[in-house]
Amino acid sequence: MALLAGSANEQCTVALDGTGGDHLDTRPVVDAVRFALAMYPSLYLIVFGSSQLELDLTKAGVNKKRFEFRLAQQSIPQDEPPRSVLTNFRHSAMVQALECVKSGQAQAMLSSGGTGPLVCLARHILGVQHLSAAKAKLKEKLGVPGRGGAVRPCFAARIPVGPQRFALMLDLGANATCTPSDLFDFACLGHACAELSLERPHPRLAVLNVGVELGKGNALVQRTKELLEQDRSLQFTGFIEANRIFNDDADVIVTDGFTGNVALKAAEGVANLYANSSGMKKVFAKMARPDWLLPWQYNGSVLLGVNGIVVKSHAAAGKEALAVAMVEAARAAQSNLASKMQEALAAQ
Amino acid sequence: MALLAGSANEQCTVALDGTGGDHLDTRPVVDAVRFALAMYPSLYLIVFGSSQLELDLTKAGVNKKRFEFRLAQQSIPQDEPPRSVLTNFRHSAMVQALECVKSGQAQAMLSSGGTGPLVCLARHILGVQHLSAAKAKLKEKLGVPGRGGAVRPCFAARIPVGPQRFALMLDLGANATCTPSDLFDFACLGHACAELSLERPHPRLAVLNVGVELGKGNALVQRTKELLEQDRSLQFTGFIEANRIFNDDADVIVTDGFTGNVALKAAEGVANLYANSSGMKKVFAKMARPDWLLPWQYNGSVLLGVNGIVVKSHAAAGKEALAVAMVEAARAAQSNLASKMQEALAAQ
Repeated sequence: MALLAGSANEQCTVALDGTGGDHLDTRPVVDAVRFALAMYPSLYLIVFGSSQLELDLTKAGVNKKRFEFRLAQQSIPQDEPPRSVLTNFRHSAMVQALECVKSGQAQAMLSSGGTGPLVCLARHILGVQHLSAAKAKLKEKLGVPGRGGAVRPCFAARIPVGPQRFALMLDLGANATCTPSDLFDFACLGHACAELSLERPHPRLAVLNVGVELGKGNALVQRTKELLEQDRSLQFTGFIEANRIFNDDADVIVTDGFTGNVALKAAEGVANLYANSSGMKKVFAKMARPDWLLPWQYNGSVLLGVNGIVVKSHAAAGKEALAVAMVEAARAAQSNLASKMQEALAAQ
Repeated sequence: MALLAGSANEQCTVALDGTGGDHLDTRPVVDAVRFALAMYPSLYLIVFGSSQLELDLTKAGVNKKRFEFRLAQQSIPQDEPPRSVLTNFRHSAMVQALECVKSGQAQAMLSSGGTGPLVCLARHILGVQHLSAAKAKLKEKLGVPGRGGAVRPCFAARIPVGPQRFALMLDLGANATCTPSDLFDFACLGHACAELSLERPHPRLAVLNVGVELGKGNALVQRTKELLEQDRSLQFTGFIEANRIFNDDADVIVTDGFTGNVALKAAEGVANLYANSSGMKKVFAKMARPDWLLPWQYNGSVLLGVNGIVVKSHAAAGKEALAVAMVEAARAAQSNLASKMQEALAAQ
């Protein structure tokens, strides 16, 4: 189920920001830590959080050999502006967890904190990856030079599209406003990641739009289409409509972070209508659900395009979903996703 | 189930563009006509379409007293550019059906054709409605003067949010690119329409966003929030996330046409995963579905902001869904939705 399967036998260390999320009490984090450690024997955690979290982990009897606790009282508000994030929160759990990845103490970090702060700090602390010289040159030729080859990082997640089959969708919210240059970058990141993690040698790449006809949509998707058509190394198949996201029409679905976030949450809203019904309807809903559509198994978006593995969990994730995101982080770490992504980008 | 319930006893005439839609054969249109006439005894149709459609309606034995056929061979491609739409398709079914509404021969029109052509022609042939002088003045004061009080038309549809309970969502695709001024207009249209059709005296109005925190989202939703906060006549409650669309958190959900279209289609995609499963899973899915969530009962978006009733059916709609859209159009006509909307706008 991981974005990229590695060897589960090597020990791997994940730094956990234990302060984010919608939960005020520490219970979901404690339960998720226990659950993740049980699921994944080679996982070791560095947990950053409040003294209350430390106390509760101890009380719960979590195996002390499997984790290390570090105090970090500071928590970053979800909508803290970037300038403040970069200067006022040096002692926050999020910053410290990222620095663990930077220094190599951890091979991945996981946070349920705000998207804005997480992306801003990850870019700043870990640094961003670069497109190949060929791609940078192509972009310049096409009139969208970008930032000297530096890629625009974005959140990617696997979308279930059938039994044991996934597509990759990106961006899911790292960038609320995007340019055609950004979407081109997401296409390059998605292509590389699908080759690595979905094991598809020539992933079919589509841009999310309101229709499949050539003239449909806004200026962003129209211009992106023009760019992608010029890149022969990508298998660009055109537009895809949101009702076909789960139908295995594409391996990589490219969109801006605003639209991608709305699309996935709308899908989640309907799945919840079924899952949260009551009485016999709830029983029937469980029996009716396609076997491969288990929402909590798919928590954890990976921030592609930075020099390190950063996984974001849904802020409202329950203990199982949070544990799944930890395992997702561990597996990405064991497969060296970040460095393999940089190699793949460089070879494009 | 109508956007606005009127008296079903008065006869009402709906002009049907029988050329649009994804279907190449005429069967779904023929079946939908029969179904709609059976469901709605006071409905009379003026059907525009090919000679094949005429033949098939006759063959199917549809009651000739209940409809009139007019030949219109010309059909407008989904993505025909506006300039061409306005000049090259005078004999198309879409244009003729709109002109029936303009002349008063029909009280509403229905099309499954392209969104772009339909919106462009409806604005041109029927004319757009206007905001009240007070609203126009407020917009000018806020630095978003718009087009001299002319409102930006948009597609609205009812979203099921519980048993016999609906919210109104708009825009669903009339405008792929929107300004804050447009979203302000949608809020005014949605407020008026919710008061009329949902019978909610003070509809709760929310803007679709990627998070509910104040700083979240792109420049469009941030600026729209600032504008709506300044309008005391609207009950603006803030942002809403896409996973809460169906949870009755808001009566009116305002968004740009690109995002709204993607959100609804993503929701539809998941609903289809359940509905289109096979064997026992399909049976369970039917039993599991909340009683009020019957997708085909909700076909038909109404174009608000034009001087006449224009209903768009999903291009891929089956016969039942197409028939439901016809009834939706008839009911909107019988309740004088368009003129009541103009009165309500003027009184804002």
